Amino acid sequence: MGVLDEGHVEVGFEQEALAIEEAVKVLLQGLGEDINREGLSKTPARVAKALREGTRGYRQKAKDIVQGALFPEAGLNNGIGHAGGVGGLVIVRDLDLFSYCESCLLPFQVKCHVGYVPSGQCVVGLSKLSRVADVFAKRLQDPQRLADDVCSALNHGIKPAGVAVVLQCLHIHFPNLELGSLDSTHQEWVKVSVCSGKGLFENAKATIWSDFLSLLKFRGINVEKTCTRDSTGPCWCPSQSFSALIPCKIETVHQMVTAVTSILRSLGEDPLRKGLVGTPNRYVRWLLNFEKTNMELKLDGYVCGKMDPFQPNCNEEEMHSELNLAFWSQCEHHLLPFHGVVHIGYFCTKGTNPIAKSILQSIVHFYGFKLQVQERITRQVAETVSSLLGGDVIVVVEASHSCMVSRGIEKLGSNTATMALLGRFSTDDAAKTMFLQRIQNTSTSRGQ
Amino acid sequence: MGVLDEGHVEVGFEQEALAIEEAVKVLLQGLGEDINREGLSKTPARVAKALREGTRGYRQKAKDIVQGALFPEAGLNNGIGHAGGVGGLVIVRDLDLFSYCESCLLPFQVKCHVGYVPSGQCVVGLSKLSRVADVFAKRLQDPQRLADDVCSALNHGIKPAGVAVVLQCLHIHFPNLELGSLDSTHQEWVKVSVCSGKGLFENAKATIWSDFLSLLKFRGINVEKTCTRDSTGPCWCPSQSFSALIPCKIETVHQMVTAVTSILRSLGEDPLRKGLVGTPNRYVRWLLNFEKTNMELKLDGYVCGKMDPFQPNCNEEEMHSELNLAFWSQCEHHLLPFHGVVHIGYFCTKGTNPIAKSILQSIVHFYGFKLQVQERITRQVAETVSSLLGGDVIVVVEASHSCMVSRGIEKLGSNTATMALLGRFSTDDAAKTMFLQRIQNTSTSRGQ
Repeated sequence: MGVLDEGHVEVGFEQEALAIEEAVKVLLQGLGEDINREGLSKTPARVAKALREGTRGYRQKAKDIVQGALFPEAGLNNGIGHAGGVGGLVIVRDLDLFSYCESCLLPFQVKCHVGYVPSGQCVVGLSKLSRVADVFAKRLQDPQRLADDVCSALNHGIKPAGVAVVLQCLHIHFPNLELGSLDSTHQEWVKVSVCSGKGLFENAKATIWSDFLSLLKFRGINVEKTCTRDSTGPCWCPSQSFSALIPCKIETVHQMVTAVTSILRSLGEDPLRKGLVGTPNRYVRWLLNFEKTNMELKLDGYVCGKMDPFQPNCNEEEMHSELNLAFWSQCEHHLLPFHGVVHIGYFCTKGTNPIAKSILQSIVHFYGFKLQVQERITRQVAETVSSLLGGDVIVVVEASHSCMVSRGIEKLGSNTATMALLGRFSTDDAAKTMFLQRIQNTSTSRGQ
Repeated sequence: MGVLDEGHVEVGFEQEALAIEEAVKVLLQGLGEDINREGLSKTPARVAKALREGTRGYRQKAKDIVQGALFPEAGLNNGIGHAGGVGGLVIVRDLDLFSYCESCLLPFQVKCHVGYVPSGQCVVGLSKLSRVADVFAKRLQDPQRLADDVCSALNHGIKPAGVAVVLQCLHIHFPNLELGSLDSTHQEWVKVSVCSGKGLFENAKATIWSDFLSLLKFRGINVEKTCTRDSTGPCWCPSQSFSALIPCKIETVHQMVTAVTSILRSLGEDPLRKGLVGTPNRYVRWLLNFEKTNMELKLDGYVCGKMDPFQPNCNEEEMHSELNLAFWSQCEHHLLPFHGVVHIGYFCTKGTNPIAKSILQSIVHFYGFKLQVQERITRQVAETVSSLLGGDVIVVVEASHSCMVSRGIEKLGSNTATMALLGRFSTDDAAKTMFLQRIQNTSTSRGQ
């Protein structure tokens, strides 16, 4: 549940939501999509609602949250030391949050750890540490700024002897199509850890930092205390390495950039503030990866039945598999990325031979880089491989969906799997089991 | 965010909330507490709000959630097999939820895995699987009934070829004071896994179950497919093993039981339905563990300075520690349990000797079994040990708070740590570091 009271109706909500909807329609049309087709018709409304919900922090005040949740708690009765209401360290570990990257507008995941040393004979309700962190997470953010904002707000609200925030952030990595680095060894996540401290924690070498980091280690959380990032340093977001916008279709691209700028304004942001300059360009650049294309799937050099001298002769009884082929896609219902791996298994029919991994990866990317749903991509990959090989194909797709993280349900650890069974795999349980076992073996080696 | 729309004001909300508040006041008074003291004055309102929020599923309809989120998706164009809109397996793994135990009214955690096989050329939005599960989780539940309810609702709403639900549930264990089994080897959680299937999944031996369970294994989730529980079997909740209510203070206990019964009615439940008969008794029995007592902390046989012939002579330079002492407590702000471990380190002053582990455990339980906050219990344990040993004491408390799980923020994985440093530990960093390192070594061996 959000912090907004039930029954709270915001002034201007409808107007802003409608403005965002119109902007999203421009983006969809810019991608060459029919905004009236069934999967997309409600997408503008969904995106507007999700963006408003996901940036509700602009309309919340941390002070309102802390006030009324400060409880008097005595310090030590006597003796020397620190405990309870005065000087005892209190930390909450492993708060799962998500935020929006101000550089590219995509959601990123946050593991948040907050600690403070009470003073003034009072402590704050533990859940408020999470609520205050969430107020600033639900804005367009950079990790270090998020940590600093949360730290300052808690310092202001609780007036403790000291307060510290440690964030471990995960950002989706972008496929770099230009460098051709689309193989499965491509890094899935960009990770960054940041710290912020006030009061006793202002000095990064203070022993109170060692105490805090020791208590994190009990939960297997290893963070360096010197991880405060220099705000003048390079941004962590991989969108910063995007090349300039492609010069074709200038008019369309310009309309899309203008639409994103208007979304920023509708959310209550200033598109001219430093962190946001260039964001509309970068977001459009990312979106254009998923432009609808009518080009034929290019499988040059591979035609069904044609022998490839570089591949061994095919044994009909042998199951072939390519596991963990990376894919990126964009959910057409929420205009948010989902990404993961595709596993493909097949038997060759007589006269065909195994397909090179690079061709299977191309098929996966062809169906990935458009507005999609996971169920459809699974079927399309299976059908395409089947058309090349004669029918006995199994495809399993495993993916993390940003929409499961950043929409209302906020299920950060969830993961979706879909399966297609064609030909022999739909009847031969032993073959299917053998393939699933192969995936499991690599899952184990992946440490899952 | 809940499924309830913002701006939705419920009829009767205030009346029901007030009725719950009044009942909570009866419970607090039954525990011997002053309902006007600062830590408790807002507790009735907090409990009423949390209970209403946590049982919002009674006021939601799964059908409303699924409708409008069914998307047409083609099946295979040709060929034999299953994929996409017809026959392809779709599963969502690792949805974190919480529910309320109908046997004892305490929250329990749920790892929910849902799978279905689409038919009728349509698929459902993935987040709806989570939302529908949440509708039934946010009621008073038993794990098997929860799985069956979710399965039936999805079957009804999506009309798939088959649907399956696997739940892994964690319930707080209760300390069994009567058996004296209050040591740290006591099991922290009661675990149970349950399955439910409809359509293709109705037959527990169907190969579709193997496929589903294989896909769960990729994420390290090992569940037996025969884990459907017999609803006529014994209830999983440890409250079922409670003895009858203690016969003293019959009038007070009777009032408390009546108050809990009225809460059930305010939530829209029938206190006479089979799963709830006895629940008010069991809840009051649990609560009475945390009755306010004025009895002196009994440390018979241990007086500061008195030599214990069974303990070795004390070396002033040697640090003693007792780690992972189990504790249970009840949060006075939310009337919900928090539990975990206490770590105690100390140096003996000349003329004293180490304290037996059983005495330290008694101290921990003395301060645990009442309405508390973690910051206070940390200070109280430190002060008491200090008074016995002359001053050089460190105490670290690590706890999971049900209020962090089942209140609005729903942070299921979070964990709180508090620290008190007395005497030498507040100045001697080497001693403190040595103690924290000892905890970390046991954390590692605990597999955290």
